[in-house]
Amino acid sequence: MSDTSGLDLTRFSINQQTVKQLSLPELVDACVDLGVPAVGLWREPVQSYGLDAAAKLVRDAGLAVTTLCRGGFLTAIDPDARAKALDDNRRAVDEAATLGTDTLVLVSGGLPAGSKDLRGARERIADALAELGPYAASNGVRLAIEPLHPMFASDRCVVSTLKQALDIAERFPAEQVGVTVDTYHIWWDEDAPAQIARAGASGRIHTFQLADWITPLPEGVLNGRGQVGDGSVDMREWQGYVEAAGYTGSIEVELFNDELWARDGRELLAETAARFVEHTA
Amino acid sequence: MSDTSGLDLTRFSINQQTVKQLSLPELVDACVDLGVPAVGLWREPVQSYGLDAAAKLVRDAGLAVTTLCRGGFLTAIDPDARAKALDDNRRAVDEAATLGTDTLVLVSGGLPAGSKDLRGARERIADALAELGPYAASNGVRLAIEPLHPMFASDRCVVSTLKQALDIAERFPAEQVGVTVDTYHIWWDEDAPAQIARAGASGRIHTFQLADWITPLPEGVLNGRGQVGDGSVDMREWQGYVEAAGYTGSIEVELFNDELWARDGRELLAETAARFVEHTA
Repeated sequence: MSDTSGLDLTRFSINQQTVKQLSLPELVDACVDLGVPAVGLWREPVQSYGLDAAAKLVRDAGLAVTTLCRGGFLTAIDPDARAKALDDNRRAVDEAATLGTDTLVLVSGGLPAGSKDLRGARERIADALAELGPYAASNGVRLAIEPLHPMFASDRCVVSTLKQALDIAERFPAEQVGVTVDTYHIWWDEDAPAQIARAGASGRIHTFQLADWITPLPEGVLNGRGQVGDGSVDMREWQGYVEAAGYTGSIEVELFNDELWARDGRELLAETAARFVEHTA
Repeated sequence: MSDTSGLDLTRFSINQQTVKQLSLPELVDACVDLGVPAVGLWREPVQSYGLDAAAKLVRDAGLAVTTLCRGGFLTAIDPDARAKALDDNRRAVDEAATLGTDTLVLVSGGLPAGSKDLRGARERIADALAELGPYAASNGVRLAIEPLHPMFASDRCVVSTLKQALDIAERFPAEQVGVTVDTYHIWWDEDAPAQIARAGASGRIHTFQLADWITPLPEGVLNGRGQVGDGSVDMREWQGYVEAAGYTGSIEVELFNDELWARDGRELLAETAARFVEHTA
């Protein structure tokens, strides 16, 4: 196993999905052993383990919870589906508060079946946030709209750029709605550095996540994110943009990758921590 | 087989790649039989058939050649690789002129191995066009930079948006360098309509191509383009943008799709012509 002793992991946070082969207790143990100070959690494994038990487990281990992934999927046209989505997002806010994180990541949702109306879908997201933003803030939780790579625009997230995410977020106070800056989704976008500055100026960089861009993309393209350092993204360059914009928080590594998931989870966590140190400032 | 009699195919052009299961003579025969007036050709099948023979075949059949695909791949750092790419692009210009088309589509190329420098790669494209643009214009051929979807940014085309394509194209006269507007690559981009207007204002919409966006994307993502009408793209909306920008030329349908390629080529051509009429104005 990679040796993480001596590495400065102060700003490192491991997103749970990166090492999803580890159970929650295994993840917590590994973080403590390796000196990883923070985790980003996902709702499904937390719910499976039990919300209160998960909160206690992480708290007792002294781990910070940097984010909860994820709320969102707010593009439904059907009123019942919309009401269900809003209910589910309120539960996600409650879960975030219980886990002790101030940030709920939002993946906004794709086009409803048969629709070709990206603009309309984005407006429905904004409408939903008008209800969810105050609820989140009253629970001490900020919503962080995550623009996803344009290859997900139809089926997962109609918010494809930081500019679009900020155009929505800025309709609300920063303590209600901000953005997720994830290198995987924005690395190709020459406008993204300016949008990071814009986000920082209004205190809306609610989390910063790293993943590398590698090809060929797998079928369905979801689980093809590269280990930090394996691909085309200059991590230090993007770290520089968010830090110039005033971001001083944790940096999460969030990878979805079938090959990485097939490996030993503890070894992968140690490798990821080492890569984090190697490729960030 | 779909019946194309009675359809107005005046502005329809079939890109050869869409029906690559047809040999060049089969394609030409099918176009004549179905009343398809124009084709976009690809270099490799034309070279296999013989350039002069292909030019004669198409000319004798009375078919217009709307584009030749493709030049480009101009991002190499290595001087020898760069010189080879320039030579190859000059040959592509010559082939376009021989085939009687005024438009050579350029797919600019991805990042060289090990590089993470998108900006540098784009500058090398501009440098190359300073050599190729005058050569093309002196042969009656216009270069049409095609922005490819951002999912191709690392391995195929560092030009990901119409804005980037125009930022490069506008360094040169419009009769040397313009852009390719392809719905598949830009449909997600809220800035694209404004960029189409910009392109039209300087006479730089050199070709307009249709393909639909469907999911899930296949492994490698190259051959997942949807038949017109099968996906998320509102074709009439995009046709409206290019026509408002002054474009009155042919509209090519260019699909890369393994399932479509497994079908009878003539039947696919007839279906594509019918879809074109159904989904354009």
